[in-house]
Amino acid sequence: MGDSPPISVLLGSGGIATDERRQTYRDLVAAHFRDCDSVLFVPYASHDHSSYTSRMQEFQGPGGPTLVGIESLGDPLAAVNQMQGIYIGGGNSFLLIRELHERGLVEAIRDRVLSGVPYLGVSAGANVASPTMMTTNDMPITLPPSFDSLGIVPFQINPHYHPGKIRFMDGDELVEHYGESRAQRIAEYHRTSDTPVLGMWEGSFLKWYGSTGCLFGRATVFRKGEDYYRLSDGSTINSCIEKVTG
Amino acid sequence: MGDSPPISVLLGSGGIATDERRQTYRDLVAAHFRDCDSVLFVPYASHDHSSYTSRMQEFQGPGGPTLVGIESLGDPLAAVNQMQGIYIGGGNSFLLIRELHERGLVEAIRDRVLSGVPYLGVSAGANVASPTMMTTNDMPITLPPSFDSLGIVPFQINPHYHPGKIRFMDGDELVEHYGESRAQRIAEYHRTSDTPVLGMWEGSFLKWYGSTGCLFGRATVFRKGEDYYRLSDGSTINSCIEKVTG
Repeated sequence: MGDSPPISVLLGSGGIATDERRQTYRDLVAAHFRDCDSVLFVPYASHDHSSYTSRMQEFQGPGGPTLVGIESLGDPLAAVNQMQGIYIGGGNSFLLIRELHERGLVEAIRDRVLSGVPYLGVSAGANVASPTMMTTNDMPITLPPSFDSLGIVPFQINPHYHPGKIRFMDGDELVEHYGESRAQRIAEYHRTSDTPVLGMWEGSFLKWYGSTGCLFGRATVFRKGEDYYRLSDGSTINSCIEKVTG
Repeated sequence: MGDSPPISVLLGSGGIATDERRQTYRDLVAAHFRDCDSVLFVPYASHDHSSYTSRMQEFQGPGGPTLVGIESLGDPLAAVNQMQGIYIGGGNSFLLIRELHERGLVEAIRDRVLSGVPYLGVSAGANVASPTMMTTNDMPITLPPSFDSLGIVPFQINPHYHPGKIRFMDGDELVEHYGESRAQRIAEYHRTSDTPVLGMWEGSFLKWYGSTGCLFGRATVFRKGEDYYRLSDGSTINSCIEKVTG
């Protein structure tokens, strides 16, 4: 058996809305793409491709990678096969996976990433790195031909994870909401699937190397039939999302 | 043109978790099904059909209707065509609409309700009363053959609606969540659809008569390209979710 090529995947939960989180994002992203002259940005989770690409280029800051929007290139498939890095941004996962399937890019991106091309996915872009997009939080505004996704990590990601029930402001009053918690929704998913789910708290990142990964920030692990548990910052995990160290 | 038959549809947002909301539910449901000896209960949004039917029978209280679970009858289609009332309960909308399509019940339920059979839908059961299930909040744990739904009201329902961003408890601390608000998600829906959306606050109900309806509780109206606005308790609305009185 030959050596597998090294895999370099960085997944972000999203919610990168504080100075500290933005700095973590910029440090991790700059390091992740340090060997890339430019990176293919895939804005398909949004309806406004070119403006989204522009916004994300600004968001990188001065030390960040140069992004090339896939919408600016004539042949998306050729772009996937030629660019030195791939970044799929957030938005609506249903829209994103429909576009990826309709343009025939799912296998191409998977093959490139498994051959060592650095991949970054944030929010919807992290969700679709999973075997399926079934653990998204998004609204099904369009029906994709399939929920099958990139499968470049062997477990499901639930981005923007939060524990417990939610609350909201009803005028000046903070009130309880009685909809399902994320844990309840993930338990519903586990009624028909055995794949473990990594609930990534907002602002967290996972660096994945192909069979192990390292967590920056917090995450909660859901395995079918077991109690869920939290992973702390710096944890190292394996393909079953079992904690190796940390 | 002949007279259209009277239509009797009651939709509940869900979140029926306080004594006041339970009482409102029981009063409205008992009146809604007052002419029915028994009502067909459809528990397909849940994985445990018979236990869900039992729980919902208990939830009705002593003055409520007698529920007959569709899972207890040999022929679901015949049951839809024979029973005097239909009640679709909450759970996961993707699971629910997949079951309804696979069992060939979507048109049958629509036809029965449009011919005057009283319909009650709560949470997922209110969502699927819409033309499509695209404004659900649920997790896509299964891929249905279509998002097309019952279409017994001419607008979309977003159940468990809440305004603004959410908060959650991180240990003892109440913190902000940066995921999309419902209004942002519904705006995404309106990028590809013109159908107005009724965001029903938890505990609210809508009684629909075919071309007008009356709101019990609060709701927020989303019309493509317009500012959204709130409806107050007792509002009467038309098919475009325009306020007629109240």
